[in-house]
Amino acid sequence: MSSPAQRLGAEFVGTAFLLAAVVGSGIMGDTLAGGNVAVALLANTIATGAILVVLITMLGPVSGAHFNPAVTLAFLMRREIAAGEAGLFVLAQIAGGVIGVWAAHLMFADDLLQFSTTVRTGGAQWFSEWVACFGLVFTILATLKVRAEAVPMAVGLYITSAYWFTASTSFANPAVTIARGLSDTFAGIRPADVPLFIVMQLIGAACAVIVARWLFSADAEKTG
Amino acid sequence: MSSPAQRLGAEFVGTAFLLAAVVGSGIMGDTLAGGNVAVALLANTIATGAILVVLITMLGPVSGAHFNPAVTLAFLMRREIAAGEAGLFVLAQIAGGVIGVWAAHLMFADDLLQFSTTVRTGGAQWFSEWVACFGLVFTILATLKVRAEAVPMAVGLYITSAYWFTASTSFANPAVTIARGLSDTFAGIRPADVPLFIVMQLIGAACAVIVARWLFSADAEKTG
Amino acid sequence: MSSPAQRLGAEFVGTAFLLAAVVGSGIMGDTLAGGNVAVALLANTIATGAILVVLITMLGPVSGAHFNPAVTLAFLMRREIAAGEAGLFVLAQIAGGVIGVWAAHLMFADDLLQFSTTVRTGGAQWFSEWVACFGLVFTILATLKVRAEAVPMAVGLYITSAYWFTASTSFANPAVTIARGLSDTFAGIRPADVPLFIVMQLIGAACAVIVARWLFSADAEKTG
Amino acid sequence: MSSPAQRLGAEFVGTAFLLAAVVGSGIMGDTLAGGNVAVALLANTIATGAILVVLITMLGPVSGAHFNPAVTLAFLMRREIAAGEAGLFVLAQIAGGVIGVWAAHLMFADDLLQFSTTVRTGGAQWFSEWVACFGLVFTILATLKVRAEAVPMAVGLYITSAYWFTASTSFANPAVTIARGLSDTFAGIRPADVPLFIVMQLIGAACAVIVARWLFSADAEKTG
Repeated sequence: MSSPAQRLGAEFVGTAFLLAAVVGSGIMGDTLAGGNVAVALLANTIATGAILVVLITMLGPVSGAHFNPAVTLAFLMRREIAAGEAGLFVLAQIAGGVIGVWAAHLMFADDLLQFSTTVRTGGAQWFSEWVACFGLVFTILATLKVRAEAVPMAVGLYITSAYWFTASTSFANPAVTIARGLSDTFAGIRPADVPLFIVMQLIGAACAVIVARWLFSADAEKTG
Repeated sequence: MSSPAQRLGAEFVGTAFLLAAVVGSGIMGDTLAGGNVAVALLANTIATGAILVVLITMLGPVSGAHFNPAVTLAFLMRREIAAGEAGLFVLAQIAGGVIGVWAAHLMFADDLLQFSTTVRTGGAQWFSEWVACFGLVFTILATLKVRAEAVPMAVGLYITSAYWFTASTSFANPAVTIARGLSDTFAGIRPADVPLFIVMQLIGAACAVIVARWLFSADAEKTG
Repeated sequence: MSSPAQRLGAEFVGTAFLLAAVVGSGIMGDTLAGGNVAVALLANTIATGAILVVLITMLGPVSGAHFNPAVTLAFLMRREIAAGEAGLFVLAQIAGGVIGVWAAHLMFADDLLQFSTTVRTGGAQWFSEWVACFGLVFTILATLKVRAEAVPMAVGLYITSAYWFTASTSFANPAVTIARGLSDTFAGIRPADVPLFIVMQLIGAACAVIVARWLFSADAEKTG
Repeated sequence: MSSPAQRLGAEFVGTAFLLAAVVGSGIMGDTLAGGNVAVALLANTIATGAILVVLITMLGPVSGAHFNPAVTLAFLMRREIAAGEAGLFVLAQIAGGVIGVWAAHLMFADDLLQFSTTVRTGGAQWFSEWVACFGLVFTILATLKVRAEAVPMAVGLYITSAYWFTASTSFANPAVTIARGLSDTFAGIRPADVPLFIVMQLIGAACAVIVARWLFSADAEKTG
């Protein structure tokens, strides 16, 4: 059993590395792909999916490896985390995310403080975020239930897929969304567009909790 | 043991996500690749293979994670599913597939109701579908026999490969074929070409049942 | 324990699917990549690596999943297969390989009988094949020794890597080399260049047996 | 338990194959990609990540599969390797790396002895190497602690990601850095730039030892 400080440390370090990978690989892919956005997104996808597997494998046993307020909300709804710790987790995730973005900027000799100008708005984008976060939280809850040791691989592969099958490239994470608002690079999102992304993500997460509860409930076995 | 409703729910949700991934990533890849079809298909491949591993891992323990009438037929031939439930599975798979395609259209702000105009016909395409579905069902039956926990990875990797080594990009699934008939995008197939694809898929599945039965039979050990 | 006929059947089916994947994905990649050879080889790599993991996972428990005369030679040197069965394995592998190539041609509506005109000769190519097959056989023997259930993944990933780090794209398999001589497509090799590829592969395999024997011997522990 | 000579042999062979893969796939990708650097780096990434999984899987049980003086330093700080053996490991790693580079040159019919002219210098590059090696060593120590059998996959995926999210493409290994100084190809680094890369890597490794010690300490559980 890890201490509260270790758990917060794990959420901070994990979200920092996640954002460094998302934003850093976006910059690198964008720079090298010479205008071929599909190749840039492919690099961004592989870097993100791969680091997720690594981070969840090694930090899952410490903090549960949420790295994502929507996931923390799901566990709060399931009463598997106390409200107080959940609040601290969210703060650690946001702080880690911001540090990760800044680390990426430093690594690529870019300005530390930036605000994205990439417009990501409209019904199709919002529906995409609902789907993306529903699927992510459903994947976590379902895999935890049936084969817990497969969660790191399942999350990494889910995001690998969702980067391509959602129109928003699947942010699916409020801390990631806030942090990406602070990077005017490939992976950025205009700060004004952040709030509605977060709303759709949280609704998606809540819906996933409900569907997963029914699909994996033992009661349903009896009542059909 | 899951209830009948849970099993149908798993087939519905799983096939819906599968089709959302296939069609959505097709649209995304096609849009971003700027005419480089190989890069678009690479994105489509990675998204499809990855989501298959996830879906089969988490829903396999609920319904068996068929998501595919040809797979359901194979288990029916092996008397591992009752005819009545098999029929319901197929309906759930087709309904899920259609919903998945429509979700993809919504996410990409595309018309909900579409009919594909992509011609996929001729002997080479039909033989490709026979090979694709033979290989898929053989992979499932053989892996189930020798290392059941590896089925999700085996199916995901098989389809990853078969997207490229068959001329039809390996539909290998009647529910997927029907649903892709309803999308005039990268992954579509003209409705008129759907029936023969399905016939070849079902024949391929039946052949795989027979070959797998011989290759893994204990009797053959004695008679050689 | 599988029967002799089942073991030969597994070698035949496995090598057939391997070659269908190698040659078919080569044709598909080459067709779609529009002259970008790196993208074509990437598709070829992914299709080959993925199918290897699948085939070895499911057929390993039947025949050992050699699909490769150089691997059969290695097990013969280690006296883990009888000379008579080894000979039959090689015949089944070559027959399977040829059928796999022809299946790929049929799937892509290409002429059944072809002879490659792709020149692959010279010291750099030969040294590449020595390295490729040394590494492949060493990977198999070492992984079998320390973690046998990881062999399918190890072989798939080794070939994924070796397609790129050897100048010959790592044939590393006499049955594959012969069969690819019969396809005048992306993956082909001029029949005249086949014999020296095979010689280098067999020498590489024999060297790997010797190095693996020393590195994993218990005696060496005592004598250092 | 392997003998000292076997352990050094494993470090030598493993680092040689690692460098052959890094440099060889760099040459191949660069040659085939026709100026599309992102595609070349994608090939380089996949080849490197894949071979790392293979090498660590099969040689980990022999020597620990460091293949990296920074990793050896980390285990020395943790007193899990004696200083004398650590020194010999570093020599074997450097010797293996050089042989691997030369093997790649031979395979691609290139001059054996080369010195890179690729400039890799400046604060952003150095900070990148600190991040890259911190993350690598942290990944190894954390994964060893919580799920040791996942180390090969974790390292392979970490490097796959770090190739893209660091501006330096993540050398993260002094032996690799020295060896890549000897190749005037895609993966090279000007010898003059080697020393500062190594300094940053060693500092990153030391920092990772400290952070991992705190995050996984049992004492911290009590004191928070």
